[in-house]
Amino acid sequence: CPSLMLREVASMYFTMVAAFLVILVVALQGSVPRGTDFPYKVPLDPQGLLELSWNVSYPEQAVHFQLLIRELRFGLLFGMSDRGEFENADLAVLWSDGHNSYFGDAWSDAKGQLHMDSQQDYQLLGARRAPEGLYLLFRRAFSTCDPKDYLIEDGTVHLIYGILEKPVRSLQAINISALHGGLQRVQLLKPNISIPQLPSDMKTMEITAPDVVIPSQETTYWCYMAELPEGFPKHHIIMYEPVVTAGNEGLVHHMEVFQCAAEFDSFPHYNGPCDSKMKPDRLNYCRHVLAAWAMGAQAFYYPEEAGLAFGGPGSSRYLRLEIHYHNPLVFKGRRDSSGIRLYYTATLRPYDAGIMELGLVYTPVMAIPPGEDSFILTGYCTDKCTQLALPTAGIRIFASQLHTHLAGRKVVTVLSRDGREQQVVNADTHYSPHFQEISMLKEVVAVFPGDELITTCTYNTEDRSRATVGGFGILEEMCVNYVHYYPQTQLELCKSAVDPGYLHRYFSLVNRFNDEEICMCPQVSVPQQFYSIPWNTFNRDVLKSLYSFAPISMHCNKSSAVRFPGEWEKQPLPSITERLRERVPRCPGSPEPHPAAPIPLDLGQLRR
Amino acid sequence: CPSLMLREVASMYFTMVAAFLVILVVALQGSVPRGTDFPYKVPLDPQGLLELSWNVSYPEQAVHFQLLIRELRFGLLFGMSDRGEFENADLAVLWSDGHNSYFGDAWSDAKGQLHMDSQQDYQLLGARRAPEGLYLLFRRAFSTCDPKDYLIEDGTVHLIYGILEKPVRSLQAINISALHGGLQRVQLLKPNISIPQLPSDMKTMEITAPDVVIPSQETTYWCYMAELPEGFPKHHIIMYEPVVTAGNEGLVHHMEVFQCAAEFDSFPHYNGPCDSKMKPDRLNYCRHVLAAWAMGAQAFYYPEEAGLAFGGPGSSRYLRLEIHYHNPLVFKGRRDSSGIRLYYTATLRPYDAGIMELGLVYTPVMAIPPGEDSFILTGYCTDKCTQLALPTAGIRIFASQLHTHLAGRKVVTVLSRDGREQQVVNADTHYSPHFQEISMLKEVVAVFPGDELITTCTYNTEDRSRATVGGFGILEEMCVNYVHYYPQTQLELCKSAVDPGYLHRYFSLVNRFNDEEICMCPQVSVPQQFYSIPWNTFNRDVLKSLYSFAPISMHCNKSSAVRFPGEWEKQPLPSITERLRERVPRCPGSPEPHPAAPIPLDLGQLRR
Repeated sequence: CPSLMLREVASMYFTMVAAFLVILVVALQGSVPRGTDFPYKVPLDPQGLLELSWNVSYPEQAVHFQLLIRELRFGLLFGMSDRGEFENADLAVLWSDGHNSYFGDAWSDAKGQLHMDSQQDYQLLGARRAPEGLYLLFRRAFSTCDPKDYLIEDGTVHLIYGILEKPVRSLQAINISALHGGLQRVQLLKPNISIPQLPSDMKTMEITAPDVVIPSQETTYWCYMAELPEGFPKHHIIMYEPVVTAGNEGLVHHMEVFQCAAEFDSFPHYNGPCDSKMKPDRLNYCRHVLAAWAMGAQAFYYPEEAGLAFGGPGSSRYLRLEIHYHNPLVFKGRRDSSGIRLYYTATLRPYDAGIMELGLVYTPVMAIPPGEDSFILTGYCTDKCTQLALPTAGIRIFASQLHTHLAGRKVVTVLSRDGREQQVVNADTHYSPHFQEISMLKEVVAVFPGDELITTCTYNTEDRSRATVGGFGILEEMCVNYVHYYPQTQLELCKSAVDPGYLHRYFSLVNRFNDEEICMCPQVSVPQQFYSIPWNTFNRDVLKSLYSFAPISMHCNKSSAVRFPGEWEKQPLPSITERLRERVPRCPGSPEPHPAAPIPLDLGQLRR
Repeated sequence: CPSLMLREVASMYFTMVAAFLVILVVALQGSVPRGTDFPYKVPLDPQGLLELSWNVSYPEQAVHFQLLIRELRFGLLFGMSDRGEFENADLAVLWSDGHNSYFGDAWSDAKGQLHMDSQQDYQLLGARRAPEGLYLLFRRAFSTCDPKDYLIEDGTVHLIYGILEKPVRSLQAINISALHGGLQRVQLLKPNISIPQLPSDMKTMEITAPDVVIPSQETTYWCYMAELPEGFPKHHIIMYEPVVTAGNEGLVHHMEVFQCAAEFDSFPHYNGPCDSKMKPDRLNYCRHVLAAWAMGAQAFYYPEEAGLAFGGPGSSRYLRLEIHYHNPLVFKGRRDSSGIRLYYTATLRPYDAGIMELGLVYTPVMAIPPGEDSFILTGYCTDKCTQLALPTAGIRIFASQLHTHLAGRKVVTVLSRDGREQQVVNADTHYSPHFQEISMLKEVVAVFPGDELITTCTYNTEDRSRATVGGFGILEEMCVNYVHYYPQTQLELCKSAVDPGYLHRYFSLVNRFNDEEICMCPQVSVPQQFYSIPWNTFNRDVLKSLYSFAPISMHCNKSSAVRFPGEWEKQPLPSITERLRERVPRCPGSPEPHPAAPIPLDLGQLRR
């Protein structure tokens, strides 16, 4: 069997599905984990030609990747970048010049030009042919100390991929803009949580959309109403997992199950797009999250002591399933019956789990000027509110779902005690509004009466020409962290907004400081006033100063409408006297000034 | 002759001035420069027991130090720190435990505790006994890449020294707070300028204070009036140098020669302290700097094409010499006849040199809130002014004297062209108001019509409880760069201040934003309005925003009272679209995590 080049492999494009086994001999740079050692899996492209599996080793502070390439042509790029762009990306590249194949750790500059890294941090561990395709195995430390490398952190990671359709002379010759490629968002650093014991009386319930024809458009939010049996008593949801129709793994982007409001006796049945004119308005009252899953996420487990109550008196029998289909290749006629499988028990656990909203009130008084690359808004859950509403023994936060609308770029919640920051509750510095899963926390966070929870959201409005105000609309903004905790308390909302009186002073100040006559009259709505501000540096700076100075209006609420008793207007801003230190990776030494050579892949031992 | 320990050396304290020669054999880590290779010299302590000589190698990017210790006890510390403090300092330490002696590169933490550096960057080159004392020779690179080390930059360097009076067990055992020590400010990185050719008809004139008895107090500014001969024609000063009475090198801190205003026919003779009630008021009209020297500075040379005009019609015959005596040990009865020696020629050079004031107008509208650790004020010389006032061929700036009052911490002037920063004219990031010399620039800076000169001063008001306004008083502030240039133009002042109308809007804004009723009435003076502001974060932030946004009032003046024709009020702030990159030192690798061992000094070869 003679030496077989990647080019020839490509010529066998349509026969490659047939079973033949190729063993690629490559320089091994570490132990090769077995295929079963990759518990997490996600399709990279909508067709499912590239499939990524991985595991996370916290002792080694490294991720092991297994990339399945179903139809290899002349190579591929795989990597990570800040927000999924191909510029300034950190890439593992497999490429063929038509004769020989190479693997290397590379980076792309601001113009998309590829360069070999001086330090090779995507360590190739092996390559293996299987009937389904070529498996590439490689390892990457979270932090490499190579300034050109991506730092793998908690939260969202934007994975990018590109397929080489032609041979290339060298890495530098790859034209990144002409690549067929895309991005996939995942939480790479899955928490290392032991799975709680499940009771023997556990039952399952599938909330799935029956036989949906996925619309042939890029984005669809599908709504389906489900119903619990009449007289269904109180149970505890103790786990849930996705049910994805085989073959649609690349299309089902995320799914959520909402419980409807108890004040309505019935909800209409509906099965159709969420934005359809035919959708009954009453479905808007189904907003209480019971379960949420996003691509790449696994099963969600409640802690052993707690479960999420559903059923029983005082709760609605109606559930709304929402599925986001992402169909960029506009496949037609694909049928889908995906959804979420709930695992529940009648043997109630010691504690009901609860969900609390932290962050900003949905109000236009919190606004972001246009043209900002990273504008920060902060929402507070004050000591006064936790003092009043939390039990002496405190609560335990075990999961968190971060939420903003389209301009959101980062979300961080920090726990502060006596003005000193204690720990990060949840942080996503590569947050995307298109990837909102409920993340189990690595560490359960205990919150006691008198603690403060400070949620900071960073927004990008560079593409907008007028101010973005807070609100429910998709082009308005939110800054929310839905924290999942136990034992459940009456506190459902612990959020803030700037005092409206101070905002009014800001508007009249802007009025005085600008020579143009702009009507900032009080009879004009807050959004209209924001829209009419001429956004010079002074007006921007002063708005920032206002938000970090003015007293706040607190929503310390039992439900969205019912406040705890007390004075919640014109509250002082929590002050921080001691910040958490940023963790700076310790680096053994700075990299060599010249780039390393790629690793040639010996493809000479191909066997059918 | 047996081995002689430092302890025994100490016991011979009073006999050490007698001639004996000690040769210390130490590990040589480089070539040892000869004693004559140290052109710069400064006494460290007022008694002159420690004398530092040094040279600067720009090719090696290193300074070679020669430290003369006249009376060695149990060792000494020598080093550098941000502003002369003993905490967070970078130190070379020679110490004895009573038996053995050691040399090491160390650092002190925020509590003053000493630690060995992991990287030894004060490289000991040799040690030599001479009749006058012990010479230590060592080398230090400007930038070491050790994060605990001081970065040697252009501008002021605060040298510190401490004398060990007792043996110490180890470096860590040194109690830095109990040391007898002090600080000395110098410009370490002297520019590497070739000395211009001097004409054969050069004459000298000494402006010296005759036989002053230095007052026995820490600080004295001495004023002495001198007079040019009647009918003295126009000459060019082409060089000047200090004349310091032998023995007073540690006391004469800095000296300036001012020319008096031409509008007065005569000035009274005076020889006494500048702050005396007996000092005639008219001496305040002698403010035009002819020459300025500070400790550690050498001779000042004008460029070959230019000289500073003095004498002749239209200029005053009267000169004021001001000497700052720094006498912290309160010596009594010391006599001094120091001053400045001017070198001048009747053969006028092609160009008259001129002095131009850049920065801020002396006005209270530019103010610094109290309690700020680094508040920035910026003064502009706009394109409109240089367009009008500079010749088409431009001017050449060859020297600069930075000036603030007591709160000044940094001063930087940058040249900008078409909104893009071109080069730093002069920068002192460790600026001290107590060390103001005229520095020759490393590179002559060409300024053309339409260029902008932006001067930024950073102030510290942490020790103040009320606002610091701009003005002439020592507790008011200035932000000035006196640039020396040729050919002389009519432009004497190119400075700015915020538009007073915008400042007034700020005051009324503060009024509206604070619930307390404070009178910010227009009939109250600007300083009084600043003094009555309640300094919360909002009022501070908005003042910063105001200064970086509001239009400016330009002083584009022929003299302090006469403006160039044109509209100079409500001018737009120059905008910068491209900043100069900060030079980040390239580091070969990060240091070892564990500290290095000190170098033992072999003192076994002592000979009388």
